[in-house]
Amino acid sequence: MLKMSHDSSKKMKKVCSSIEGGSDLDVAIQKNLEAVDVFQIEIDNLNMKASEEILKIEQKYNQQRKPIFKKRGEVIKNIQNFWFTAIMNHPDLSSIVDEREEECLQFLNKIEVEEFEDIRSGYQIEFHFDENPFFENAVLIKEFHLEPVGSPNSQSTQIKWKDNNDLTKNTDNNFGKSGGRKRRLESKSFFLWFIDNVDPVSDDIAEIFKDDLWQNPLQYYLVPDIEETNAPENDE
Amino acid sequence: MLKMSHDSSKKMKKVCSSIEGGSDLDVAIQKNLEAVDVFQIEIDNLNMKASEEILKIEQKYNQQRKPIFKKRGEVIKNIQNFWFTAIMNHPDLSSIVDEREEECLQFLNKIEVEEFEDIRSGYQIEFHFDENPFFENAVLIKEFHLEPVGSPNSQSTQIKWKDNNDLTKNTDNNFGKSGGRKRRLESKSFFLWFIDNVDPVSDDIAEIFKDDLWQNPLQYYLVPDIEETNAPENDE
Ligand SMILES: [Ca+2]
Ligand SMILES: [Ca+2]
Ligand SMILES: [Mg+2]
Ligand SMILES: [Mg+2]
Repeated sequence: MLKMSHDSSKKMKKVCSSIEGGSDLDVAIQKNLEAVDVFQIEIDNLNMKASEEILKIEQKYNQQRKPIFKKRGEVIKNIQNFWFTAIMNHPDLSSIVDEREEECLQFLNKIEVEEFEDIRSGYQIEFHFDENPFFENAVLIKEFHLEPVGSPNSQSTQIKWKDNNDLTKNTDNNFGKSGGRKRRLESKSFFLWFIDNVDPVSDDIAEIFKDDLWQNPLQYYLVPDIEETNAPENDE
Repeated sequence: MLKMSHDSSKKMKKVCSSIEGGSDLDVAIQKNLEAVDVFQIEIDNLNMKASEEILKIEQKYNQQRKPIFKKRGEVIKNIQNFWFTAIMNHPDLSSIVDEREEECLQFLNKIEVEEFEDIRSGYQIEFHFDENPFFENAVLIKEFHLEPVGSPNSQSTQIKWKDNNDLTKNTDNNFGKSGGRKRRLESKSFFLWFIDNVDPVSDDIAEIFKDDLWQNPLQYYLVPDIEETNAPENDE
């Protein structure tokens, strides 16, 4: 609905000059096309204003959500394996976690998603870890720079693996074939996803972290408990 | 960002009652989970408020765009084959127009997209036709009812075909194989798309009409002129 396009007037000029000196019919068409173009400019301006107002609202609410997310993060830190459990219960995320990564992700104590000041320009996902046998970093950050200009790109913290523990090497490439894990989302592992910055625009996994897990991790943390509670007990 | 989920407190109660009488650790986890749930309710409330404010802005600008679209439609009526040309120049729409349909769509004198009062609830696309040898109707309307409850559905005007001119019968099923038409979007023809109300939620063609062609038809009407104007002249 808010698609911008300010280039029709440029095209217009070319068309008009190309049909200069044409018949009366051409002139009539030209006049009508110019009128359509004026309407288009009015629509584009309204779209731009609408986008700006919507952006302001999103920014306002982002600011209001931020302290709540912060406090949430501090409470979550006290719940052993909260993020690991939520990830492993998530229908799309669990499938990217390799067996050896499961061990590692139990050291995850905080996830934070931070949108940049101008929320259109991008966001970053932070993974905070307790001291662990796999790498030296306390935080692994994956940043997505999406707009306004230049080709979109993403960057991720260089992981300082401890000896022989580089989980992006020797990943178990067969794990997708066994077990009940349905969707593999391009069969990456968590850390292969983390270090891969080839296609930031269609990074499904990043979007699941940002728009789904981060927005409501509790529902994923809780899900299996619920199902157990509700499950019919057949073994009596 | 605005995903709603008000059901975690319900899940919560079940979890809490299921760990009643547990150890001190259980009690601590329960307290923390309850705190996370309170944050989640606060976030859900902010999301709901943000959605409402954004909806109001969209409705406000829809109202402002409406009279411009109306006036645009009246001017476009004076430009012979405007909509037909725009459709045939559109990279995704041209591919659904069957050869016999091309003849018919030249009688199209107006397209209108109207969002329903509550824009979340759906929209309709109207195709207005001059008198023509194919059908009796002056207007063909395809309506999409998307929210808030019940399964989404679409409906389209019953087309009163004139004898032997039903374009949904005898469509040339081979046309996709010839010519330079790249994307077939499920190989429908225009009228097969129009009468098909099986999957209103992922109706790509409807969305192209609504979010792309309708928003700026002039760019498609003009495109080939431009390319001719700019094309290098190699045959001298
Ligand atoms: Ca941070
Ligand atoms: Ca109408
Ligand atoms: Mg947190
Ligand atoms: Mg119109």
